[in-house]
Amino acid sequence: MRYINIGLIGLGTIGTGVVSILTKNSRLIEDRLGIPVRLAKIADLDIKSDRGIEIDKGILTTNAEEILNDPGIDIVIELIGGYEPAKGFILRALNNGKHVVTANKALLAKSGEEIFGMADRKRAAIGFEASVGGGIPIIRSLREGFVANNIESIYGIVNGTGNYILSKMTDEGGDFSDILKKAQDKGYAEADPTLDIEGIDSAHKIVILALLAFGTRVSLEDVYTEGFSDITQTDISYAREFGCRIKLLAIAKSSGDEIDIRVHPTMIPQDNPISRVNGVFNAIRVTGDFVGENMLIGKGAGSFPTASAVVGDIVEIARDMIRGSEGYRLPSRSYLPERIKDAKIKDISNITSEYYLRFSVLDRPGVLSKISGILGDRSISIASVIQKGRRENEAVPLVIMTHSAVERDIQSALSEIDRLDVVLEKTVLIRVEDGVKGGR
Amino acid sequence: MRYINIGLIGLGTIGTGVVSILTKNSRLIEDRLGIPVRLAKIADLDIKSDRGIEIDKGILTTNAEEILNDPGIDIVIELIGGYEPAKGFILRALNNGKHVVTANKALLAKSGEEIFGMADRKRAAIGFEASVGGGIPIIRSLREGFVANNIESIYGIVNGTGNYILSKMTDEGGDFSDILKKAQDKGYAEADPTLDIEGIDSAHKIVILALLAFGTRVSLEDVYTEGFSDITQTDISYAREFGCRIKLLAIAKSSGDEIDIRVHPTMIPQDNPISRVNGVFNAIRVTGDFVGENMLIGKGAGSFPTASAVVGDIVEIARDMIRGSEGYRLPSRSYLPERIKDAKIKDISNITSEYYLRFSVLDRPGVLSKISGILGDRSISIASVIQKGRRENEAVPLVIMTHSAVERDIQSALSEIDRLDVVLEKTVLIRVEDGVKGGR
Repeated sequence: MRYINIGLIGLGTIGTGVVSILTKNSRLIEDRLGIPVRLAKIADLDIKSDRGIEIDKGILTTNAEEILNDPGIDIVIELIGGYEPAKGFILRALNNGKHVVTANKALLAKSGEEIFGMADRKRAAIGFEASVGGGIPIIRSLREGFVANNIESIYGIVNGTGNYILSKMTDEGGDFSDILKKAQDKGYAEADPTLDIEGIDSAHKIVILALLAFGTRVSLEDVYTEGFSDITQTDISYAREFGCRIKLLAIAKSSGDEIDIRVHPTMIPQDNPISRVNGVFNAIRVTGDFVGENMLIGKGAGSFPTASAVVGDIVEIARDMIRGSEGYRLPSRSYLPERIKDAKIKDISNITSEYYLRFSVLDRPGVLSKISGILGDRSISIASVIQKGRRENEAVPLVIMTHSAVERDIQSALSEIDRLDVVLEKTVLIRVEDGVKGGR
Repeated sequence: MRYINIGLIGLGTIGTGVVSILTKNSRLIEDRLGIPVRLAKIADLDIKSDRGIEIDKGILTTNAEEILNDPGIDIVIELIGGYEPAKGFILRALNNGKHVVTANKALLAKSGEEIFGMADRKRAAIGFEASVGGGIPIIRSLREGFVANNIESIYGIVNGTGNYILSKMTDEGGDFSDILKKAQDKGYAEADPTLDIEGIDSAHKIVILALLAFGTRVSLEDVYTEGFSDITQTDISYAREFGCRIKLLAIAKSSGDEIDIRVHPTMIPQDNPISRVNGVFNAIRVTGDFVGENMLIGKGAGSFPTASAVVGDIVEIARDMIRGSEGYRLPSRSYLPERIKDAKIKDISNITSEYYLRFSVLDRPGVLSKISGILGDRSISIASVIQKGRRENEAVPLVIMTHSAVERDIQSALSEIDRLDVVLEKTVLIRVEDGVKGGR
C-alpha cells in the first residue's frame, strides 16, 4: 500500500477545511501514519466557486458516482449533510467495500440502524467523530477511552450556534431575536436557524451519544426537545441570583432499565465548569461507574475544528487499513452489533429534576402561601424563594427553586397554579442540572 | 482466541481498582470486545492483606517471574511504580512478546526511549493512558483524536494532590503546611509529598505529553520545575483581585524549533474554565493548528479513575489482538519511531509570559516611580498596579501585573529592584497564563 486514497463528496465549509488540513499538514500526517493520504477525487455540484484554497482542477467532478464507483478509492468522506442523497451515497460506498467518514448527525440519528448495519455486514469502517462536538474527541472517548465503564450519564452543550446566542444574552444582555439576527449577520447562525434554536440538532447528537454510551437505539421522536427561544433576560438574571447560568443542554441518563433523554434550556451552577463554556464552544460531560466525571470542551462548530475530526477518522481508518484490520477492530457503535438494544425511554413526566419556577402574580397577601401550599400538596419541597418589588394590582415575579421533584407533580401543580386568579401569565419552568448550591 | 489473559504485577491502590473493574464490569467489557478478559495471575509482595475485594487465592503469587515467563499471558499490567524493578519487568515482558499496560509516569519520563524502543522492536503494544491525568483520555486524544493537527501547546493541572491543596487554600483559606497536613491525614497526600508539591510529578507527565504532542524527546532535567509550597494567602487574594486563581500548571509549547516546557504555580483568569477545576480533578488543554483549543477534565488520581484508564488500554490492545494487528496499528509515541527528534529546549530566561510581581516596599514617596522606572528601562510594560495600606516605615505590598515580557528582562529588573534600600524582602514572582483580563 503506497497511498491512502480519499474521495471527498461535498466541498462546503467542512469539506474545504478537510482539503486545507490534508494540504498543509500532509507531512505531519505521514510522520504519524507512515504513508501519505492522497485526495484522489472531490465531488460537488459547484466546482466553479473560489473557496480560497488551491485544488488541482483535475480531481474535481460534479458526479459523485465517479467516487462511489472508483475501485482505487479507499475512504469516502460524505460532507453534504441532510438525508438524501447523503444516505444513498454512504450506503453505496459501504456496499462497494469502501470505508466512510461522515459528519452527518441528522442522518446518523435517523438512519443509524441502516448505516451501521451495512457497515457491520460489509466489515467496513465508519468514522463519525465529526458528527458530535466538532473537534472534541467524544466519539473516540466513548468507544475506547471510557470502555471499561458503565456510562451512567452524558450531557452537554452540543450546539455551537445556540450556545453563542445564549452566552451573548447572558454576558451582554439583549433579546433573543436581536442577538439571533446579529449571529446570522456574522455567519454564526443559519438563515433558517430552526434546527439549532429548537434543539433539534442537539437531539440528533444526543441520540448518537446515547447509542455509544448505553448501546441503546433511541428514536429521534422519543427525545423530549425544547428550544431556548423563550428564554428572557428576566430568567437569565434570576439564574444569576441563584448562582447559575442558563445553557441549552442535551441530556441522557441511564438507570439500567430506562433512558432519560431530553434537550432543553437548563440552569447550571456557576461552579460547574460547563457553565463557563461560552460562545461556539461545546462541552460534554460523561459520568462512568469507575472513571467518575469527565468533561471534554472544544469548538463544536466551524470549518477547521470539524475537519480536524474528519481527518482524525481518516488516519484511524488508514492505520487499520495498513494492518488489514479495518472495520473489524472496533464495533462502530462501541458494543458488538448483537448487543445493541432498543431503549426503553423514560417519559418526561417521570423524570426527576430540580426546577426553577417563575410565577407572574398579583402582589397580594396570601399569594405565596397559596402557591407553596399547592406545591406542598404534591410533596414538592422549596429550596429558595425570591420575591421582589411591590406594585399594587400589577404582576410581580415570584421565583421558586425547588428541591428534587418528579416532573409529573410539578406539571400538575403548575396547571392548578396557573388557573388561580392571582396568577396572570403562564408560569415559566426551567429545569436545573447538577444541584442548586449556595442559593441566593 | 477464547480469552485475553492478563497478568497483573502490583496489587496496590490502582491494581485493586483494576481487579474491581474486571470483576464488576466483565459482562459489559465482553459486550464491547466480543471475548472475555481473564485475570490469569496477580503478583505482589504482599498477598495476605485484605483489599476488600474477592480474589481467587489460586491466582496470587509473590513472584513476578511467574507472570513474565508464562506463555499463556497476553498482556502484563505493571502497577508497582518507581524505577526498579518496574523497568526490568516491563522490558522483560516486552522481550517475551507480551503487551504491556502501565501507569508509571516516572519511569516513562526517565526511560521512555528504552521502553518505547523495545516495544517498537518487538512489535508489542504499550498502553500508558493511566500515566497522565488518571481517567482522562488524553494519551488517546493526542495519539488519535488530534492526529491531524500540529500541536502548538499543551498545558494543564496534572497533579491531583497539588490541586487539592491549592484549591483548599483558595476556597477555604489556611496555610500551605496546615492544609498539607490535613490532606495527608485524609490520604490525599503521601507521607513524603515531595514529588507532588515540588512539581516533579507534573514534570514527569509533561515530558510524556510533549513526546506525544510534538514527537520530541525531552530530558526530565531540562524541564524548569518550581513547586507551590511558597504560595501564600497574600498572593491568592491578590490573584482574586486580578480576577485570577493560582494553579500548579505543567506547560509545553512548541514554536516549531524550540520547546518551552516548564512546571510552576500560575495565575489563570477566572473565565478560563481551567481555573474552576478544583480538588483532585485534573484538566489538560491542548491547542492544535486546526482543532483550536480543547480541554479535557476529569479525576486525575485515585484507584478507580486510573484503573478505568488501565482497563481501557487492555480493551484497546485486546481489540487489536483479536485482529492480529496489535503493536503495529498505532505508533506508541504517536509518530513513527524514526520521526522522533531530540527537543531543543527554550531556556527559562528566554520565555515570554505575563508576570505578577509582589514587592515588599517601604511606604515612602517615590518608591513606585523607582520600581516602575527599572521595569521601564527594560521595556517591561505595566498592565495594572495595586498599592494599598499606609504604614509608615513598615513594609507594604506593591503589586504589579505586567504585559507580556521576556523572563530574562524580568529577572534582571528584579535583581536590581531587590537591591534597593526601600525593598525589604525578595520579590514574589508568579507567571500568568492566558492573559490578564479585566484587571482589578
